[in-house]
Amino acid sequence: MLILGIDPGTAITGYGIVEFIGNRFKVIDYGKILTSNDLPLHNRVKIIYHSLENLISKFKPDHLAVEELFFNKNTRTALSVGHARGVILLAGANCNMKIAEYTPLQVKQAVVGYGQVQEMVRIILNLEQIPRPDDVADALGITICHAHSYKVNKLFKED
Amino acid sequence: MLILGIDPGTAITGYGIVEFIGNRFKVIDYGKILTSNDLPLHNRVKIIYHSLENLISKFKPDHLAVEELFFNKNTRTALSVGHARGVILLAGANCNMKIAEYTPLQVKQAVVGYGQVQEMVRIILNLEQIPRPDDVADALGITICHAHSYKVNKLFKED
Repeated sequence: MLILGIDPGTAITGYGIVEFIGNRFKVIDYGKILTSNDLPLHNRVKIIYHSLENLISKFKPDHLAVEELFFNKNTRTALSVGHARGVILLAGANCNMKIAEYTPLQVKQAVVGYGQVQEMVRIILNLEQIPRPDDVADALGITICHAHSYKVNKLFKED
Repeated sequence: MLILGIDPGTAITGYGIVEFIGNRFKVIDYGKILTSNDLPLHNRVKIIYHSLENLISKFKPDHLAVEELFFNKNTRTALSVGHARGVILLAGANCNMKIAEYTPLQVKQAVVGYGQVQEMVRIILNLEQIPRPDDVADALGITICHAHSYKVNKLFKED
């Protein structure tokens, strides 16, 4: 299975594309989609949507795993991340991908026994360096979470 | 000018399509886009996006006016409305519309001297009844706000 993992944000959306075959991970690509704070919001969501469409069209991942975020206080941040998540989920739905959402806690549990998520992502995916910024490492962490979760689910049901 | 006004929400997105020529308003269409809470979020944003695309393709409005929302406390609501706003702004950007955002206060100031926004929308637009639910009346209010704002701006610059 080829998984596209996303850590959504209006300014920085991290992405990772990871192949999971048997019990092995292979990193295909990772990076970030940046949008400038100077642009109107409708231009920023357009950049995020079309950058994702390009990635999906280039690599043809069949699974989309998106970080599900909760905010305690900052409603402005929640609204802003919501804009990015909305168009990210739309891109996946328009491309007929299988879509899953995971909380940061689920990602952490899938990736780490102990230690930093970022360092464990580096080790599990056999990367020389921790991908920067954190949004990219987190996006890769979400692919690991989804690979595990999907494998466990498949033991119980066919999909 | 033909204005599409939107009051965004994941469950209910109100819309109004209003023509503004000279100083007169003509209501072309209004209504609501509903999505069920039972559906996964990516299906809900897909419904909102494609319903809007259909409206834009049918009526060909050149202006999109979207309510800009602020939340004091509920980050969950802010995130949810953010998803809807994200795909609404994307639909407008993908269709090359002129896009403006207005706060509820700006809408209120444009629509009412005194009294309820909904009732003034009915009077200004010469409707027999107040459109329901409030999301629809609010969407029509946003079109009035945009018509006034755009007209005032045009006095100072060409666009």
